[in-house]
Amino acid sequence: MLVQAYGAHAGDKPLEPLEIQRRTPGAHDVQIDIAYCGICHSDLHQVRAEWAGTQFPCVPGHEIVGRVSVVGAHVSGFTVGDLVGIGCIVDSCKHCDDCGAGLENYCDGMVGTYNFPTPDAPGWTLGGYSQKIVVHERYVLRIRHPEEQLAAVAPLLCAGITTYSPLRHWNVGPGKKVGVVGIGGLGHMGVKLAHAMGAHVVAFTTSESKREAAKALGANEVVVSRNANEMAAHTKSFDFILNTVAAPHDLDAFFVLLKRDATMALVGAPSSPHPSPQVFNLIMKRRSLAGSMIGGIPETQEMLDFCAEHNIVADIELIRADEINDAYERMLKGDVKYRFVMDASTL
Amino acid sequence: MLVQAYGAHAGDKPLEPLEIQRRTPGAHDVQIDIAYCGICHSDLHQVRAEWAGTQFPCVPGHEIVGRVSVVGAHVSGFTVGDLVGIGCIVDSCKHCDDCGAGLENYCDGMVGTYNFPTPDAPGWTLGGYSQKIVVHERYVLRIRHPEEQLAAVAPLLCAGITTYSPLRHWNVGPGKKVGVVGIGGLGHMGVKLAHAMGAHVVAFTTSESKREAAKALGANEVVVSRNANEMAAHTKSFDFILNTVAAPHDLDAFFVLLKRDATMALVGAPSSPHPSPQVFNLIMKRRSLAGSMIGGIPETQEMLDFCAEHNIVADIELIRADEINDAYERMLKGDVKYRFVMDASTL
Repeated sequence: MLVQAYGAHAGDKPLEPLEIQRRTPGAHDVQIDIAYCGICHSDLHQVRAEWAGTQFPCVPGHEIVGRVSVVGAHVSGFTVGDLVGIGCIVDSCKHCDDCGAGLENYCDGMVGTYNFPTPDAPGWTLGGYSQKIVVHERYVLRIRHPEEQLAAVAPLLCAGITTYSPLRHWNVGPGKKVGVVGIGGLGHMGVKLAHAMGAHVVAFTTSESKREAAKALGANEVVVSRNANEMAAHTKSFDFILNTVAAPHDLDAFFVLLKRDATMALVGAPSSPHPSPQVFNLIMKRRSLAGSMIGGIPETQEMLDFCAEHNIVADIELIRADEINDAYERMLKGDVKYRFVMDASTL
Repeated sequence: MLVQAYGAHAGDKPLEPLEIQRRTPGAHDVQIDIAYCGICHSDLHQVRAEWAGTQFPCVPGHEIVGRVSVVGAHVSGFTVGDLVGIGCIVDSCKHCDDCGAGLENYCDGMVGTYNFPTPDAPGWTLGGYSQKIVVHERYVLRIRHPEEQLAAVAPLLCAGITTYSPLRHWNVGPGKKVGVVGIGGLGHMGVKLAHAMGAHVVAFTTSESKREAAKALGANEVVVSRNANEMAAHTKSFDFILNTVAAPHDLDAFFVLLKRDATMALVGAPSSPHPSPQVFNLIMKRRSLAGSMIGGIPETQEMLDFCAEHNIVADIELIRADEINDAYERMLKGDVKYRFVMDASTL
């Protein structure tokens, strides 16, 4: 079927209205009428061909929420009318160790929601800046938030799980002191989630201006990372640091804040490398530098349920489809608190 | 008491015979007649003032074995005549969390065996290139190897524990595939220990010439890391990699060999940083880069007992004290299989 979408024909062209093809739902497929789609910084990188391998036309979007409109004959978990979400993953090999462990995000055959190979036309996946999407039920998430929160739920599908998964994996909870570096789309979710998990949360920002906002999100303390004295006061005190900053920066300044055996996990990959970290800071206290990439499907469901239970959504600015190009420019300036979400009814 | 030692008066001077002062044993002290002392690359860095803060005269040496000759009134664990060892640690604060956990190596108040502040003359610790040493019994290790192996036991006190501790911490054992990068003083112990722990051991070396030697040490496979095809055959297959190479090198080449959730631990700190690693390689499979520094006292005893049980010692070349300067030059060229040990009776 043909549906309206918003995408680009080239990396140096603005996004514009497009008509795209969606497959007829198969036996295990769920067709979703998209209500909202969050706007992630990855969307911009991919559609502007700042990352390698962008196929055009490119329709970004992997923070998708909406209602089930069709279910295939063998779909057991969803019925028409259900509120559901689609995140960054629409397929995977389904039989490797990673898939078996519910860590489809680490499957070598993971199919991302846009710009990944697919047998469907046009040969690569097209994302959530569109009216409908058809996805195997394994990759469909149930949303238990009230419907009036739906737009603000959308960013949980990427920004939420990208921060929730490392917080859980490294055992954040009561009695733990946790740092969240960078208070943007990812970081603001990291603060909310770590706070809800019961940790003592310290937000790190480069902007004095974000101090009050970070406290409002749930941070117990806020450190302006350019202030060496503020940083030094936290030496060797963190159980875990979640670093959401993709821009190259000094990792050593944060390593020295970790306790023995503690980890700093990076969830953003800079386009040019960070300054090379001092190995000595890792060796001295058996510290670790780790990476984490989104999360698996079962954990994404767990995150959504956790957020529904704790009344957590993203802080968003709702926009029309024809505002996406402007939103990208504002996102580049950090001028968003904290996530744009597109209203798919404006396509 | 005055004892003979070997050390240097300045960073640019060779080591030479010295007379040094040892304290009279206190109630909790053990006095040891040193039989042998291993020669570690750290000794060279410190005595040549390549590392900051070297105090002169400097007497290196932290791979010490010998016999107890005096025990203080309150010493309960050792008696005169016992075969014992001293490693890199001769004191610590004894009351922090790290000391409480038996991880004196991570205590902020750890006192290293040489060049650390002490109330004893001359105000900094003097190491094992000497006839006797006096140490609090907490930091004295029992040696259960046969006496004829004593010289080859000495390197276990640093090279042994530095590799044993991370192998244990990251759960190396049967069913695990473990890489050991660099086949020198540390790496040759890493291969022997990982093999004895029951792991499948792959040795990485830059020299084709070390292939057979690494197999003789216990490696199941040997990869010449300059050979891209050999490296690629091991992509995403390692549970753990122990990297013993202190010279700056490409870490990414090893990250891609790790499975999901696996760690590469560094035990050497390069004087200039490694090329900055690609964060993407960490994020993609939730991999970690960690550091590890020697080991705590209880774990050092565990390592010595493990080695005695499995008949593991270092491969050594025994030298006289007056050969230490030449040994340093050969060590710089990698011309040693795999550790020099000084016979303290030649002082």
